[in-house]
Amino acid sequence: MLREPLDPEKYRLRRQRVAGLLADRRIGALIVGPGSDLAYLAGYRIPTSERMTALVLTADGGAVLVVPALEAPRAMAAAPGLELRQWQEADDPSVLAAAAAAGSGDVAVGDELWAMFVLALQNALPARRFRPASEVIRVLRMRKEAGELLALREVASSADRAYARIRELEYAGRREDALASDIAAMLRSEGHEEVSFTIVASGPNGASPHHHSGQRVIEAGDAVVLDFGGTRAWYCSDITRTVVVGDPDAELVRVHDLVRRAQEAGYAAARAGARASAVDAAARSVIDGGGYGERFIHRLGHGIGLDGHEHPYLVSGNDLALELGMAFSIEPGIYMPGRFGVRIEDIAAIGPDGRAEPFNHADHALATVR
Amino acid sequence: MLREPLDPEKYRLRRQRVAGLLADRRIGALIVGPGSDLAYLAGYRIPTSERMTALVLTADGGAVLVVPALEAPRAMAAAPGLELRQWQEADDPSVLAAAAAAGSGDVAVGDELWAMFVLALQNALPARRFRPASEVIRVLRMRKEAGELLALREVASSADRAYARIRELEYAGRREDALASDIAAMLRSEGHEEVSFTIVASGPNGASPHHHSGQRVIEAGDAVVLDFGGTRAWYCSDITRTVVVGDPDAELVRVHDLVRRAQEAGYAAARAGARASAVDAAARSVIDGGGYGERFIHRLGHGIGLDGHEHPYLVSGNDLALELGMAFSIEPGIYMPGRFGVRIEDIAAIGPDGRAEPFNHADHALATVR
Repeated sequence: MLREPLDPEKYRLRRQRVAGLLADRRIGALIVGPGSDLAYLAGYRIPTSERMTALVLTADGGAVLVVPALEAPRAMAAAPGLELRQWQEADDPSVLAAAAAAGSGDVAVGDELWAMFVLALQNALPARRFRPASEVIRVLRMRKEAGELLALREVASSADRAYARIRELEYAGRREDALASDIAAMLRSEGHEEVSFTIVASGPNGASPHHHSGQRVIEAGDAVVLDFGGTRAWYCSDITRTVVVGDPDAELVRVHDLVRRAQEAGYAAARAGARASAVDAAARSVIDGGGYGERFIHRLGHGIGLDGHEHPYLVSGNDLALELGMAFSIEPGIYMPGRFGVRIEDIAAIGPDGRAEPFNHADHALATVR
Repeated sequence: MLREPLDPEKYRLRRQRVAGLLADRRIGALIVGPGSDLAYLAGYRIPTSERMTALVLTADGGAVLVVPALEAPRAMAAAPGLELRQWQEADDPSVLAAAAAAGSGDVAVGDELWAMFVLALQNALPARRFRPASEVIRVLRMRKEAGELLALREVASSADRAYARIRELEYAGRREDALASDIAAMLRSEGHEEVSFTIVASGPNGASPHHHSGQRVIEAGDAVVLDFGGTRAWYCSDITRTVVVGDPDAELVRVHDLVRRAQEAGYAAARAGARASAVDAAARSVIDGGGYGERFIHRLGHGIGLDGHEHPYLVSGNDLALELGMAFSIEPGIYMPGRFGVRIEDIAAIGPDGRAEPFNHADHALATVR
C-alpha cells in the first residue's frame, strides 16, 4: 500500500484519455474497483473488501469515487480531484455507483471487480449492456509512460541485486521454504517494498511451473528454479533463474542451453510491430527444434506493470502488435515430470529503437551453487 | 498458501450440502474461483490470477474443477475427489466452465469471482440468470464446524500472546511503520503463518479507522490504536486494543471506558436467536448514551473465518438471527477527528449455551505504554 509521490495531474490526464476512448466505443460509463486499475486512474491503492469502493468514469469526463464513509478521509487525501460520494454502513453503494453511471451506452467493468458488485450493478442498471473495461484501460496501461518504465527498471534492478546474493546462499541440505524466506529478505533489503512470491522449486518440484516452496530438502545435483518478485513504488518485478547444486548432469546442461537460446529468440522476435503470438512462436520453435516442444507447457510471457501479470500476453492466438513502451516477461521453460524443470525469465520493454530492451541483467548462465 | 491437513471427506461433505441447497433454490450450478470459497469447498488455496480456475458444483452433485493445465499437478494433489478439466494456454476456459454448468436453473457465482470471468460466463450461458453464490455458501460458512472454531480459537490466542509482547514495546519517539513491523514479527513468532494487516494509528491518525501505518512519530500522551491480524492454518485473527503513551488525558479515559462498556453490551446482546442488527444497536446505544453516537462511524462487527471479513455482519439493517457456531468481531469505536481514536475488538463465537464466547482474552484496559 506504499504510495507513489502524489501527482494529481498525471491521473487526471489518464482519466481524460479514458473518457475519449469511452466515447469512441459507445461506452457510457466505466467502473473499476480497488486494485491496479484504481491505482492507475486515481492514484488510490487500497485492499479489495466487501465494502464497495468504485471509480465511475463517464464519457463526458465525469469522475466519481464511491467510498465507504469510514474510508473517506483516506480517499480524499490519496485521490484529489475526484468527486467523492460517501455511503454509510447500512446503505446500498451500488445505488450511488449506478447513479454516477446513469445515461446511455454500455457499462464497462474492471477485470478484477468482484462478482458481488458486478451483479449488484447489473441489477441497478438493468437496461445497460456490460462489457470488460480492460478493452479500454489496457490501451493505456500497455503503453507505459516514462515514469512507469523507470519504476519497472528500478524494481528489476533491485531483483537483479537480490539474485546476485541469492546465488551465494547455501542450498544443499536446506528446505525450499527456508530458502524462500531468505530470498524474501534479500528482495526487501535490496529495495523491494513488498514481496509477492518466492518460488524455490528443487529437483522434481521444478517440473511444476507454479510450485509452492515446501518442505523438500534440496540435494546435491538438484536443478533449482528460483522465480521471485514483488513491488517497489507500486511496480512489479518478476525474474527467474535456474541454478544447480554442484555438478549438473548432461541433460540439464543441454536443456538449460536450449531454454537460454529460446529466450534469445524471443528477444530477437520481440520488436515493435511484431505480433505477440509471433514472439511466442519464435521462442517455441527453438525448443521444438531441440525436441522438447511438449515440455514447454505455458505461454512465453505476460505484460507487467502495476500488476504482476497484465496485457500484453505473449501467447499463441494473440494478434496484438507490440509497440514502444510495452513491457513484458520473456520466460521460456522446459518441464521434465518427476525429474527437473528449467525456466529463465527477464522483464523487457520495447525501446525507442523498436527492440526489446532487457530490464533484468542478472547472469543467465546455469549457476553452480553450494 | 499454507495448507490444512488434507481431509477430502470434509470437503466432499460440504459440497454435498451445497448441492442440496442448490436444488432447494432452483440454482442449477454454482461457480466459485480462487479464494476462500474454493478453499472451503475443495481444500484448494491458490492466488487469484488472470488464468481461470473455477469449481463448478451442480444441483445433481457434479463437482468439476476447471484448471489451467500448468496448475493441474498442484490441483490434483491439493483437491482430490474432483473431476479435473484442464485448459491449455490458448483455450477459452469459460467454455469448459459453461459446459460443466450446462442444464437449467440459475447460475450462482462466488462473491469474489472476477468480473472478467463473470462476463465471460454470462456470454457463454446467455439464457441463464446469474445470482450471488454467497446466499448458498454463507449458509454453510457462517455456521462454523468444530475444527474451524478450534482454528479460530488458536489463531486468536496467538494474537493475544503477540499483544502481551506488543504492549511492552517502546512507543514514544518511534514511527508508526516501525512499530507495525515489530507487530508483524511478533505475530509470526507467536504462531501466525501470514500477517494480513498491522494498523498503528497514533494520535490524530486514530480517528481514521483504516489508517495505514505511516511515518508519524509517536509522542507522549498519544492514544495509539493497534489493530492487527493474519492467519494460521488458513483461519483469520483480528484484534484491536488502544494504548496510551504515558498519562492519558481525562477525555481519553472517559471515551475508552465508554467503548469498553459498549463492547460489553455487544457481548451481552450477542445471543443465539438475537438479530445481528440488534447486537449492533445494543452496543451503539451505550455510545449514544455517552454522547458520542456520531463518532461511532462503522458497524459493530463482521464475521470471520477463512476470510477476515465475511458473513454475518453485525450492522443496522441485517435481520439475520445469530446461531450456534457463528463467529464474528465485536468492535465498537469512537473517532475524534484531529485528536484521537479508540477501538476495542475481540473475536467471539456463539457457544453451546447460546452466549457469545470470547476467543480473545488479551487485557481490555487502556494500557499505558512507554
